[in-house]
Amino acid sequence: MFKHQINGQLDLRLLHYCHADEVYECVDRNRSHLERWFPWVKLTTDSGAIRKFIEAELHRYAKNNGFSAGIFYEDRYIGNISFHDVNWNTKLSSIGYWLVSDYEGKGIMTSCCRALIHHGFEVMGLNKIEIRARTDNNRSRAIPLKLGFREEGILRSVSYYHDEYYDHVVYGLLRDEWKGASDEAVGGLN
Amino acid sequence: MFKHQINGQLDLRLLHYCHADEVYECVDRNRSHLERWFPWVKLTTDSGAIRKFIEAELHRYAKNNGFSAGIFYEDRYIGNISFHDVNWNTKLSSIGYWLVSDYEGKGIMTSCCRALIHHGFEVMGLNKIEIRARTDNNRSRAIPLKLGFREEGILRSVSYYHDEYYDHVVYGLLRDEWKGASDEAVGGLN
Amino acid sequence: MFKHQINGQLDLRLLHYCHADEVYECVDRNRSHLERWFPWVKLTTDSGAIRKFIEAELHRYAKNNGFSAGIFYEDRYIGNISFHDVNWNTKLSSIGYWLVSDYEGKGIMTSCCRALIHHGFEVMGLNKIEIRARTDNNRSRAIPLKLGFREEGILRSVSYYHDEYYDHVVYGLLRDEWKGASDEAVGGLN
Amino acid sequence: MFKHQINGQLDLRLLHYCHADEVYECVDRNRSHLERWFPWVKLTTDSGAIRKFIEAELHRYAKNNGFSAGIFYEDRYIGNISFHDVNWNTKLSSIGYWLVSDYEGKGIMTSCCRALIHHGFEVMGLNKIEIRARTDNNRSRAIPLKLGFREEGILRSVSYYHDEYYDHVVYGLLRDEWKGASDEAVGGLN
Amino acid sequence: MFKHQINGQLDLRLLHYCHADEVYECVDRNRSHLERWFPWVKLTTDSGAIRKFIEAELHRYAKNNGFSAGIFYEDRYIGNISFHDVNWNTKLSSIGYWLVSDYEGKGIMTSCCRALIHHGFEVMGLNKIEIRARTDNNRSRAIPLKLGFREEGILRSVSYYHDEYYDHVVYGLLRDEWKGASDEAVGGLN
Amino acid sequence: MFKHQINGQLDLRLLHYCHADEVYECVDRNRSHLERWFPWVKLTTDSGAIRKFIEAELHRYAKNNGFSAGIFYEDRYIGNISFHDVNWNTKLSSIGYWLVSDYEGKGIMTSCCRALIHHGFEVMGLNKIEIRARTDNNRSRAIPLKLGFREEGILRSVSYYHDEYYDHVVYGLLRDEWKGASDEAVGGLN
Repeated sequence: MFKHQINGQLDLRLLHYCHADEVYECVDRNRSHLERWFPWVKLTTDSGAIRKFIEAELHRYAKNNGFSAGIFYEDRYIGNISFHDVNWNTKLSSIGYWLVSDYEGKGIMTSCCRALIHHGFEVMGLNKIEIRARTDNNRSRAIPLKLGFREEGILRSVSYYHDEYYDHVVYGLLRDEWKGASDEAVGGLN
Repeated sequence: MFKHQINGQLDLRLLHYCHADEVYECVDRNRSHLERWFPWVKLTTDSGAIRKFIEAELHRYAKNNGFSAGIFYEDRYIGNISFHDVNWNTKLSSIGYWLVSDYEGKGIMTSCCRALIHHGFEVMGLNKIEIRARTDNNRSRAIPLKLGFREEGILRSVSYYHDEYYDHVVYGLLRDEWKGASDEAVGGLN
Repeated sequence: MFKHQINGQLDLRLLHYCHADEVYECVDRNRSHLERWFPWVKLTTDSGAIRKFIEAELHRYAKNNGFSAGIFYEDRYIGNISFHDVNWNTKLSSIGYWLVSDYEGKGIMTSCCRALIHHGFEVMGLNKIEIRARTDNNRSRAIPLKLGFREEGILRSVSYYHDEYYDHVVYGLLRDEWKGASDEAVGGLN
Repeated sequence: MFKHQINGQLDLRLLHYCHADEVYECVDRNRSHLERWFPWVKLTTDSGAIRKFIEAELHRYAKNNGFSAGIFYEDRYIGNISFHDVNWNTKLSSIGYWLVSDYEGKGIMTSCCRALIHHGFEVMGLNKIEIRARTDNNRSRAIPLKLGFREEGILRSVSYYHDEYYDHVVYGLLRDEWKGASDEAVGGLN
Repeated sequence: MFKHQINGQLDLRLLHYCHADEVYECVDRNRSHLERWFPWVKLTTDSGAIRKFIEAELHRYAKNNGFSAGIFYEDRYIGNISFHDVNWNTKLSSIGYWLVSDYEGKGIMTSCCRALIHHGFEVMGLNKIEIRARTDNNRSRAIPLKLGFREEGILRSVSYYHDEYYDHVVYGLLRDEWKGASDEAVGGLN
Repeated sequence: MFKHQINGQLDLRLLHYCHADEVYECVDRNRSHLERWFPWVKLTTDSGAIRKFIEAELHRYAKNNGFSAGIFYEDRYIGNISFHDVNWNTKLSSIGYWLVSDYEGKGIMTSCCRALIHHGFEVMGLNKIEIRARTDNNRSRAIPLKLGFREEGILRSVSYYHDEYYDHVVYGLLRDEWKGASDEAVGGLN
C-alpha cells in the first residue's frame, strides 16, 4: 500500500506479502542473468522463499535496521534496493541493489540510489553510506562513481560463490561530500 | 519514506521512528480532546511511548496482522488510522481511527477509511470489515454509516475507562455489500 | 487429580495429560455429530492432538487467562466447558462448551455453565460474561437464555467453515444482572 | 476451583492466583515456625512473591513436571504439598511438604502424602517416589517411615541456609513395595 | 585450542567442534564396551550427535554450570570427564567420567579426577563434590574410594536402561576432608 | 582451567568467570592508556561488566563464532586477543587485541597473533583473516605488517568515539599467503 514516488513512471514500494508472487515471477524470468551474481537466486525455488525474505525484511524495518524496497517501473516490479543493517553508533549503512537486465542503462538505479541517499542523510541522519560491489561487476561499480562515492579499498576474498572467492570494492560517501545537488527526482522526505 | 496518496493534500504514511516526535507533539497539543475517548493518551507522556507504539505496529505489519498509518494533511500529522489484528481464517479485520478536532467535519476520515476498505477487500482479500465505536461517540458512529456499514449489535460493557464501563456498537461491511463505487479518491492498489 | 463437584453424578475436571486418551475416544465416537459444528474435530486424528490442546489450555490457565474443564458424568468424559481468554482490564470473558448428543436435554450444560458463572463473578471478579453461538445452533442458543443472558447482537460472517461464513449471536450477562439465585448445584468457591 | 477431596474436612487444591492472599497470610502468621526450615520464607515479603510461586508451579504442571497443591482443612489453608520435577525416563519423582504447627500431630500430612502416592503410582505411572528431609527435622522424617518408605542414605551438606550446611536423609518407596493398602482416605483417580 | 596439562602424556581439552570427528570415532570403536553402561551410546549414530553434545556442553560452561573435557593421552582422545550442573547456593557439583577399556588400570581417571577436584575446591570454591556410580560398576566405584570420598548411600532405581532399573551409590567429598595432598600431577589453577 | 601455551612465560586462557576480578583490575590500572582507543573502557566500572563480557564471549565460543582469550605473562593478565564473528560461508574472520603498555615492544602480541593465525588456518579451516586498526594507531598497525598481511584499503569514518569519526585500515592475509613459517612458538593444534 505504501510507496515512495520517484518520478511519473518509477516508484519504490515497501515490500509486503501481497508482492510475493510478482517478485517471484520476476526473479524466475531473470534467473539466468541474476544467478551469475547472487547466491540467493538458486535457493529461490518458489514464492514461499520470497515471503520469508519479505517477512525478514519487514522485521528489520520494524527494528529500525534498514529496509528493502521493490523498484516498480510503470507498475511492474523490476528490481530491488535496500538499506542493509545500520550501525547507529557510527551512523553508517550501506546500499545494495539489483535490476533485471531489460531495464539497465536507463539511469533507473542511479535515481533509486539518489532517493535512498537523500533519505539516509536527511531523515535517518546517517554520516556515511557505503556501496560494495564485486570487482568483476562493472555495471554495479559504475553507479557509486556516478553518484560521487569515493573508492576506499578492495577487500580480497570476502564472498564465496560457485566454488570461488571474490574480491569486493568498497565505495563510500560521507554526508559532507554529498552536495544535495541531486534533488530533482526525489519526493517528500518521510 | 513510504506513503499512500489519497488526494493532493491528504496521504497516509506507514509510521516509522522518524515520525515519533511529530506524532507526540500532535497528541500532546490535543490531549484534552483525545483523553475523553482514549485511555492510551494519559499514558503517552513523552515521544518514547510513541516510539514503542510504532515499534509494536511495525512488527504487527511484519507479521501480516494489520498496520497503523499516520494521516497527514498538507504534510502535517493530524490523526491515525489502523487495520487491527486480522483473522485470516475468517478474512475479517476491523478499522480504528482518531483525528484532531481542528480537522473534523471535512470528510477526511471518511476518505481515509475508504482507502483502507479498498485495500482490505482488493489487496488483502478480506471478506468483512468491522468498525466499532463507543455508543456515546456520535462523530465516530457517523463514519461507518456514511460508508454503507450495517449496525450489527451493541455489546455492553466491553471497555472500561475512568471507572466506568462503556457499550460499543458494532458495524459491519461485507465484501459483497461494498460496491467499489467510491474509487474516486483511492490511489494505486499496492 | 483436581475436580469441581457439581452434584453426585456430575463434575468438572481440569484436563491434564492423563485424560488425553479418554477425551480422544469420546471425540472419535461422536465425530459425525461434532463435526457439524466444530472445525477442530477434523484435525483431531489421534490423542496427540488432544495432548497439544491440553498443554495449551494448561499454559493458558497458568497465565490466568481462562481454562478448559472436562465434563464428567458418572466418571465418563462427555464434553467440555471453558472460560476463553480474559480481558482483565474490562473484567470480561466468555464461556464455550460442547456435549456429546447422548447427554443432551438433561440440563447438564446449564448446570456446568452456572458453576462457571458463579466462579467467574465471585472468585475471578468478572464484570461481564458472554456466550456466543452460531445462529443456526438452537440448542446452544437456548442455554444463555435459560441462564438470564441478554441477546446483544448478531455479528455477521465471523466464522468460516466448510466453505461457508456463519453469523454468531452474542449473549451477555452483567454481574449486576446475575441474581446469585442459582446456587443449588454449585460447590465451594475455589 | 479444582480440588481433590481427601475426607470431609481435608482437601487439596491446585493453587491458583485467587489463593495468593490466603497463602501469604498463612505464611506470614507462621513465619517464625517456618523460617527455621525454609529459606524461601524470608524472601516472601508480600503476596506478590506467592503469585510468582503459583505462576511457576502452574507452568510446571502444564509441562507435566509435577505440581503444587494447597492443603485446606475446613476451608482454611494450612500448608502445602508438591510433586517436584518428574524424571519421566526413570519414572521417578519426589514429594515435598510443609504444615503450620497448629495442625501438626493429626495425621494430616500422612493422609495428604498417601493421596499423592496413590496418584503418583496409579495415574502418573511412577516407579519410585522419594521423600528427602533434613536430618534434624524429626517430624518430617517420621512421615515417610509411617508410609513404608525405606531409608536409602544420608547425603551430606546438600543444602545451605543461615550460614550452615545441612545433611538430608533420602527415603524411597518403589511401586512394588506400595501395597495399595491405604486406600481408605483416597478419592477418585483423576 | 585450550587444554589443561596433567602430565607429559595426559591432558584435558575443553571440547570444541574441531574434536567432533575424533570423539565420534572413539565412541564408535568402543561401542560394545560403552553401551553396557551408557544409554547415550546407542543414540550416537554419527558425529552430528557429538556436535550437539559439544554445543550443549559449551553453553553449560558459558552459563557457569560445569563443563565437559576430553581426556587426551599422547594426543589421542580416550575418554571424557565432566563437572555436571553446579548448585551455587550449596556449592555442590558432581563429577562424571568414562574411559575406553584399553586405557583402564593406569590410574588415568584418578589423575583426571584429582585435577577436577583441585579446580573445584580451589578455583570454583565448591564445598562438596559427589561421584555417583551404578552399584554394579566396580571399576567406576573404585575411583572415589581411592580419592578419599565417603559412601553416603545407595539410591534405588534411579536410572532406567535396557528395560531395567539400576541403583546408584553416592560418594561425597567435603572440602574439609580433601587434604590437598594430591597436588603432584595438577597444573596451574586457572 | 584451559589454556594455550605459547612459550615458557606466555599463554592464552579462555576467559571464564574466575578471571573477572583480575581482568577488571588490569583494565582499571591501565584505564588512561586504554581509554584513548577503546570506548568500552569507560563503561567498565566494575568487575560485573567484565563478567557480562566473559559470558557473551563464552556463548559466542559455544556458537562456533570466534572466542576471546586472556593473554597471561608469567601468570599475570596483561591483555586480550579475540577471533571476532566468523563468516563460515566465506571462511573469513578477523583478529582484535589490546595489551597494557608495560608489556609493549616485546613481540608478545605478534606471538599471540601467530598462534591464532595458525589455529584459524589449520584447525578452523579459515580462508582469510583480517586485522583492522584505526589509522592513527601505529603500534597496532605494525603487527599485521610484521605478520605478512597486506593492506587492502582505508575505510573512512567507520567508528565513532569522543565525538569524532575515525578511519580504519584493513589488512588481510589469505591462507595461501601464509607460509606456516612461523611455527616456532606455536603449541599443539587443538
